[in-house]
Amino acid sequence: VSGPPQESWVDGRATDVVSVQERGLHYGDGLFETIAVIGGQPRLLSRHLQRLASGCERLGLGADSGEVAAEVQRIARGHARAVIKVLVTRGAAVARGYAIRGTETPTRITLRYAWPREDPPMRAGARVRMAALRLGENRALAGLKHLNRLEQVLARREWDDPGIMDALMCSSSGDLVSGTHSNVFMVRDGTLLTPRLDRCGVAGVMRAQVLESAAACGLPARECVLEAGDLAAAQELFLTNALLGICPVQELAGAALPLGPVTRALQAHCAREVPGFADE
Amino acid sequence: VSGPPQESWVDGRATDVVSVQERGLHYGDGLFETIAVIGGQPRLLSRHLQRLASGCERLGLGADSGEVAAEVQRIARGHARAVIKVLVTRGAAVARGYAIRGTETPTRITLRYAWPREDPPMRAGARVRMAALRLGENRALAGLKHLNRLEQVLARREWDDPGIMDALMCSSSGDLVSGTHSNVFMVRDGTLLTPRLDRCGVAGVMRAQVLESAAACGLPARECVLEAGDLAAAQELFLTNALLGICPVQELAGAALPLGPVTRALQAHCAREVPGFADE
Repeated sequence: VSGPPQESWVDGRATDVVSVQERGLHYGDGLFETIAVIGGQPRLLSRHLQRLASGCERLGLGADSGEVAAEVQRIARGHARAVIKVLVTRGAAVARGYAIRGTETPTRITLRYAWPREDPPMRAGARVRMAALRLGENRALAGLKHLNRLEQVLARREWDDPGIMDALMCSSSGDLVSGTHSNVFMVRDGTLLTPRLDRCGVAGVMRAQVLESAAACGLPARECVLEAGDLAAAQELFLTNALLGICPVQELAGAALPLGPVTRALQAHCAREVPGFADE
Repeated sequence: VSGPPQESWVDGRATDVVSVQERGLHYGDGLFETIAVIGGQPRLLSRHLQRLASGCERLGLGADSGEVAAEVQRIARGHARAVIKVLVTRGAAVARGYAIRGTETPTRITLRYAWPREDPPMRAGARVRMAALRLGENRALAGLKHLNRLEQVLARREWDDPGIMDALMCSSSGDLVSGTHSNVFMVRDGTLLTPRLDRCGVAGVMRAQVLESAAACGLPARECVLEAGDLAAAQELFLTNALLGICPVQELAGAALPLGPVTRALQAHCAREVPGFADE
């Protein structure tokens, strides 16, 4: 639990309000990034900026990623550990209705939060459950970190045990996709597997880092179609996101899982290669 | 095109801003209603309030529908024709993340817009196309008029011919669902058919009115699974929403359709029975 933001900027102005006409509010017409700040530096910043730019391209949002970068770096400065959330929306609506008029100006919202207190600490590994709610599939939205997150809100309502860190979700077709706020990896027969995200899910920056680290370590890894049933064959299981890094799963739906060598090798590689990863 | 709102209220205060922490903005965690005002009266108000209350129940939103009703009626007064949009969200986040903490206070946003200029006038019937983008399926969200509307925004981007009124959308399974901002009805062999909305789509207030009017007129009508291919067999086709009422389709994807007797009978019934319908 991180509390309300400690700093709030809208289009470069310090304010804690936005227009009631925000298309981000009316339609979720925008994107966001959640960035770990470690030692005054935004971790994985170039991956965040790259994903944001790619999302803006797909949604036809003309946001300036140079301004985002400068603002995030400015706000991160001096904070040993913090979280910065950036929202980029299509801006205030110029008329009612879904149509984009072309005269909207994107809105950039940048919020700084305290680093979350771990409850419980994740070093030993996370306890994870399976979500009942399934994710709708839409290739046009798949991979995007967009603002339509009601599915995640409803899935997160399924439990209130603070010892459960996340729930794994399947798509409406029954494929394994991700946690509510994490990507998922499993190790099976020495190979690292993670769900393809071409029909739903968010293409996490830490997920991309792990796939790159696996390649660098010579670990066989691939994105593929997985089902919930495949989890039973997992020798190792871990979740990733920009704040958690690589979080081993020690318990899935009540069954214990070991912290294995592949997870440890990837953690060690990131600790060596990713600035801010070791000091998290 | 209706322009920006002419009046804007947040939780009963005249203001045009909301908190940057709005869960409506961060997650689309809320619902909306778009209400036609005719002769100073909100049309179909009890249906709007009923749907809003049912949506709040499903999302676990504790909004006060009595306050919504009073505010909408107050704002409608004196306006010959206007549009009132009400958004009800879970309110400002008390912490970062999807979890609902239970201490959030719902936000009520009420906006009054000018009645839209018809472009072109719809009396003769609308020109409609087929959308390429498909709707994701989620039973937990199906029927709700929630704030996750990026699919509609992207579908609406598929055309810019102002003569096209709406596009019909199918689900990821290939079933016909609705327009981007309307429900769809077809007449086949004397029976009125409209897509079931148990996997996606919005359960429109005008759609409910039409089903009730059909029953009152003794017209056979049912909700069923339809595919895009079924449209070829339509003898009549019309769209509904709270502003359009019953809008005949005169052209679908370039093919002409007649204004038929079932559409006319339903329009006549609504003109007699629904206050504000005849004077629209």
